[in-house]
Amino acid sequence: MSNRTRHDRMANAIRFLSIDAVEAANSGHPGLPMGAADIATVLFSRVLKFDPTQPNWADRDRFVLSAGHGSMLLYSVLHLTGYKQVTINEIKRFRQLGSLTPGHPENFVTEGIETTTGPLGQGIATAVGMAIAEKALAARFGADLVNHRTYVLCSDGDLMEGISQEAADIAGHLKLSKLTVLWDDNRISIDGPTSVSTSTNQLLRFAASGWATAEVDGHDPDAILAAVEAAKGSDKPTFIACRTTIGYGSPKRAGSEKVHGSPLGKEEVAATRAALGWEAGPFEIPEDVAADWRAAGAKGHADREAWEKRLAAAPAELRAEFERRISGTLPQGFLAAVVEAKAKAVAAGGAVATRKSSEAVLDILVPVMPELLGGSADLTGSNNTKAKSAKSVTPDDFSGSFMHWGVREHGMSAAMNGIALHKGLVPFSGGFMVFSDYCRPAIRLAALMGTRVIHVLTHDSIGLGEDGPTHQPVEHLAALRAIPNLLVLRPADTVETAEAWQIAIEHTGGPSALILSRQNLPLLRTDATQENKSAAGAYEIAPASGAAKVSLFATGSEVSLAVEARKLLEAQGVPTRVVSVPSFELFLAKSAAERAKVIGDAPVKVAVEAAIRMGWDEIVGSDAAFVGMTSFGASAPAKDLYAHFGITAEKVAEAALDKLRQA
Amino acid sequence: MSNRTRHDRMANAIRFLSIDAVEAANSGHPGLPMGAADIATVLFSRVLKFDPTQPNWADRDRFVLSAGHGSMLLYSVLHLTGYKQVTINEIKRFRQLGSLTPGHPENFVTEGIETTTGPLGQGIATAVGMAIAEKALAARFGADLVNHRTYVLCSDGDLMEGISQEAADIAGHLKLSKLTVLWDDNRISIDGPTSVSTSTNQLLRFAASGWATAEVDGHDPDAILAAVEAAKGSDKPTFIACRTTIGYGSPKRAGSEKVHGSPLGKEEVAATRAALGWEAGPFEIPEDVAADWRAAGAKGHADREAWEKRLAAAPAELRAEFERRISGTLPQGFLAAVVEAKAKAVAAGGAVATRKSSEAVLDILVPVMPELLGGSADLTGSNNTKAKSAKSVTPDDFSGSFMHWGVREHGMSAAMNGIALHKGLVPFSGGFMVFSDYCRPAIRLAALMGTRVIHVLTHDSIGLGEDGPTHQPVEHLAALRAIPNLLVLRPADTVETAEAWQIAIEHTGGPSALILSRQNLPLLRTDATQENKSAAGAYEIAPASGAAKVSLFATGSEVSLAVEARKLLEAQGVPTRVVSVPSFELFLAKSAAERAKVIGDAPVKVAVEAAIRMGWDEIVGSDAAFVGMTSFGASAPAKDLYAHFGITAEKVAEAALDKLRQA
Repeated sequence: MSNRTRHDRMANAIRFLSIDAVEAANSGHPGLPMGAADIATVLFSRVLKFDPTQPNWADRDRFVLSAGHGSMLLYSVLHLTGYKQVTINEIKRFRQLGSLTPGHPENFVTEGIETTTGPLGQGIATAVGMAIAEKALAARFGADLVNHRTYVLCSDGDLMEGISQEAADIAGHLKLSKLTVLWDDNRISIDGPTSVSTSTNQLLRFAASGWATAEVDGHDPDAILAAVEAAKGSDKPTFIACRTTIGYGSPKRAGSEKVHGSPLGKEEVAATRAALGWEAGPFEIPEDVAADWRAAGAKGHADREAWEKRLAAAPAELRAEFERRISGTLPQGFLAAVVEAKAKAVAAGGAVATRKSSEAVLDILVPVMPELLGGSADLTGSNNTKAKSAKSVTPDDFSGSFMHWGVREHGMSAAMNGIALHKGLVPFSGGFMVFSDYCRPAIRLAALMGTRVIHVLTHDSIGLGEDGPTHQPVEHLAALRAIPNLLVLRPADTVETAEAWQIAIEHTGGPSALILSRQNLPLLRTDATQENKSAAGAYEIAPASGAAKVSLFATGSEVSLAVEARKLLEAQGVPTRVVSVPSFELFLAKSAAERAKVIGDAPVKVAVEAAIRMGWDEIVGSDAAFVGMTSFGASAPAKDLYAHFGITAEKVAEAALDKLRQA
Repeated sequence: MSNRTRHDRMANAIRFLSIDAVEAANSGHPGLPMGAADIATVLFSRVLKFDPTQPNWADRDRFVLSAGHGSMLLYSVLHLTGYKQVTINEIKRFRQLGSLTPGHPENFVTEGIETTTGPLGQGIATAVGMAIAEKALAARFGADLVNHRTYVLCSDGDLMEGISQEAADIAGHLKLSKLTVLWDDNRISIDGPTSVSTSTNQLLRFAASGWATAEVDGHDPDAILAAVEAAKGSDKPTFIACRTTIGYGSPKRAGSEKVHGSPLGKEEVAATRAALGWEAGPFEIPEDVAADWRAAGAKGHADREAWEKRLAAAPAELRAEFERRISGTLPQGFLAAVVEAKAKAVAAGGAVATRKSSEAVLDILVPVMPELLGGSADLTGSNNTKAKSAKSVTPDDFSGSFMHWGVREHGMSAAMNGIALHKGLVPFSGGFMVFSDYCRPAIRLAALMGTRVIHVLTHDSIGLGEDGPTHQPVEHLAALRAIPNLLVLRPADTVETAEAWQIAIEHTGGPSALILSRQNLPLLRTDATQENKSAAGAYEIAPASGAAKVSLFATGSEVSLAVEARKLLEAQGVPTRVVSVPSFELFLAKSAAERAKVIGDAPVKVAVEAAIRMGWDEIVGSDAAFVGMTSFGASAPAKDLYAHFGITAEKVAEAALDKLRQA
């Protein structure tokens, strides 16, 4: 059998596993796997470095299917190359409850999937993060331990999403030469030919952003291979347009949007079998093809073993540090650094914006934790995310620990997901909180995947002042708290900020958002011990003078305001306590009894937050009073705005007294 | 005085008004107004068609300052050309509470501001919408009535945001030849030289997307003018890179990021005055300069008068329709069409997905309302937003009423804002609800500005089934309801869908989101009258058999589920009523008494929604039971998912009985 015939049969195995699985599920996307089967076959049989027996081998090449709807392409290849989780039975259970083959690839479900894709454009931007992580780790640990490439297969839709440009710009700027993007250029979108909605010359676009580009017949394996091999010689990332036919092989549907997202139907499946000369029945793989795919899957064993030998031969300290980094274990000295940060804050005293508090914490943490890779979306001086010791990553030097992401919140956040997924680094960002909207799809994916990324979101309310309502978060606390598995932390002073950093870094199961003020806040906590009070989610920060008649609940910048209100109430003989609530999620994870203890039994509860009420009722109940926002903000100095919107100690005291009169 | 000197003095007037206002506010961004003053002077004195005495003249050229932080540039020009709202006193009150000169330009505050900018990239994409609206209206009403251009001044940051690529791609594809983007190419970002984070060749990038491009010295008025005039001859949109110096004129800060976002300080202000030979004191405009600017502002009077004559001379019917369209008044026959849609649904009966219900409504509404400009982000067949009578807009024919936006939710949503701001059209979109995250910044701006745009968001829950958690909204209802001034409507059947469309179209004060199901839903309402029950936000859709012991509350696809649960409870002798809650916002706008009546006094309340609870407590109180989601969804057929996540009639009945036992 000629090499070409063998290739074709391997590719057809992908096509028919995909066709048959979609048919069985009566749901799914056959068009991409059929069209891109040749590309996948070349990559997985002739290019990629991977070992199905060790899906998480640190130095494997990464493959990201940005066009996640073509998930059966990936499941087929994982099955054929020998990833043991993806059995033929799982493929038969495609898109069924509890299967390892969900509708879109989910890395937290299936071994061998590098990242969760489906929301278009995310894959390509996530892959940029993986390629950044590779360069950063290679700069630290050397090419003996870290030397792999990242491949992306993307669709027209990925390239229409704006995030693709952010990703392209970052990758081109940083000269991520080990990143190769293959574009499934089938010229079909859901609405029909892509010419109904785009005229962009993608090759020119990527070239404009500093990429090497090539154009090949996406059904010509040798041409694909040649382009992919050429990419290895470039000092730029490479973009390869692979001209393909969507639904390749289907006599009636190939080249049409009809094959994108629906089963072919029994008759067309049979016709496609005939057209491609595929004799095997549904879910059957002829032995010659199975053997060729097994061989492809076995190819990487030797590479992996050689790498393991190099790792074993590495200096003990380097090896230990590499293994610590990849495992995500915290370094010795971490907790001491947190306590040091608290102690320093307590010693210094004074009013500090929590964004500055955060900087002070980072100045102490970053030298202790080389895995921290900070950054900012072009707001470094405002977000205060660059520690004194942090050096910027540049195109020619990845040994730094700070990324200048540019004004690209979305690309940044998706890349952070890729960095976290890669392992070895803990990425944190800087951005204005209001622009969390710009990167929400990537934050959501982080929460879904459970990646440890830390979003530092500063300028967290009307407290930012004159920049006005376009820049003032009002609904964002609620909107972020709404995302399942996202840990939202809004510290009240420097001590709580240090505790928030500790919590976020220790929170390996998902993303965290640190919500920080622009304006100065007084120091409320003066304890600098190992105890992390914020970890309870809520705790009493100021007791009542007697049996509490009023409990005040607040977060962040409003805790000090509640403490002032407490004074006013106590002065009027109303015993009042204050509860700081740095994190709803952590508090709600406590038992009902623990929560009840913190909530207390004062007849009057008032919550205070310079944001909308939504979400608070779960903490304080709908009978509590609330002092906060009900509209967008305005442009004025912060103090004027707090007064204008009635978020003052006086108003809080008033609300409490009103409630007390009613009670 | 030479023309060049006169130009320079006019530009310096912008510079010093900006410098002085920022100085007075001790807050703001002098760098852009100083750097781009020459560009603005050329545009407003030699290019733009506008009349300060009629800021809303329909056929004016539009100018969008995408880099909204440079707001003082715009306020200066508006003041100098004679927009009467922007007095020198308002400029002195820059960034103060209640002034007409907020930190970023807000069209809903200040006459002459075309759109609210500040969140980067929004302006350029909004302008694309304005240019689309111009073409669409010109196709309908002819060049005598509609023939104007759209200009954008944008910054590096605008171009780094991904939305800029979506906008560029749409504009290039549609050959929006009357759109000119001037890039303030100052090569400085907040983090320093733009070279720290980008290497993209913007001219090549825009060329790749089908734009004409040019590069000029941004301080050479004749060069700027020549490029802008050349753009008028192109059949493509034009992108002009204007090489400028940020903070032009400041001896110590020009060309540095230090001048971007902070006052110059007394000393440097004096030095800049000396350097530019500006003899006038703070907020003073020399009379020769004032006169030149007044003349620039007066230039458009004649154009406007000529246009008014053409309008007066137009056929009466055309003129009336034009005026109706610009005023946003609804056509005769609108209400009848809504009732017809309801009647048709009632007559047809059967189970229908609300996305299909919506299509049926549009089939009736679109022919009656030529101002409707529908569209979809490449999901036309899934969102069902293309009415039978709707023809697609193409690059060569703008007479259609449907936009193929491509996979560009963000660019689409911002362009919709521009279409609505332009006046004459009512844009509605189509997208998957989960991807409302992709366009959230533009939806938020719509809510802030109060633009009438309608977002049709389909596939609204785990009910979409097999595509899995990346595609299943869980937190999105809460997140959308959190946005102030956004009207969220989740209809339960075709009759409610027709009512939702009526509400959204009549809601001129802000954006609406129609939340629609993928899966079929039974017809619950059989009344097809002029009464719009959904307009109350919530209403009893099924009464209890006696004094209600249980009130069930639900929206959208869960209303029929609540109706089933009611049957189960009634069968067990528990009088149960069902309240449909198509809109929280409309319901919460009712008086407490009206709300109490709908909520009722049944001892047990249960809310049901295939989403998180957040937001519901404001409707039903925190003592109510809730049946819904607490995590991300999963990939499986919809019915399996509803069962898996416990959102069934049985579970609702169980929850009610549990509560009843406790009560």
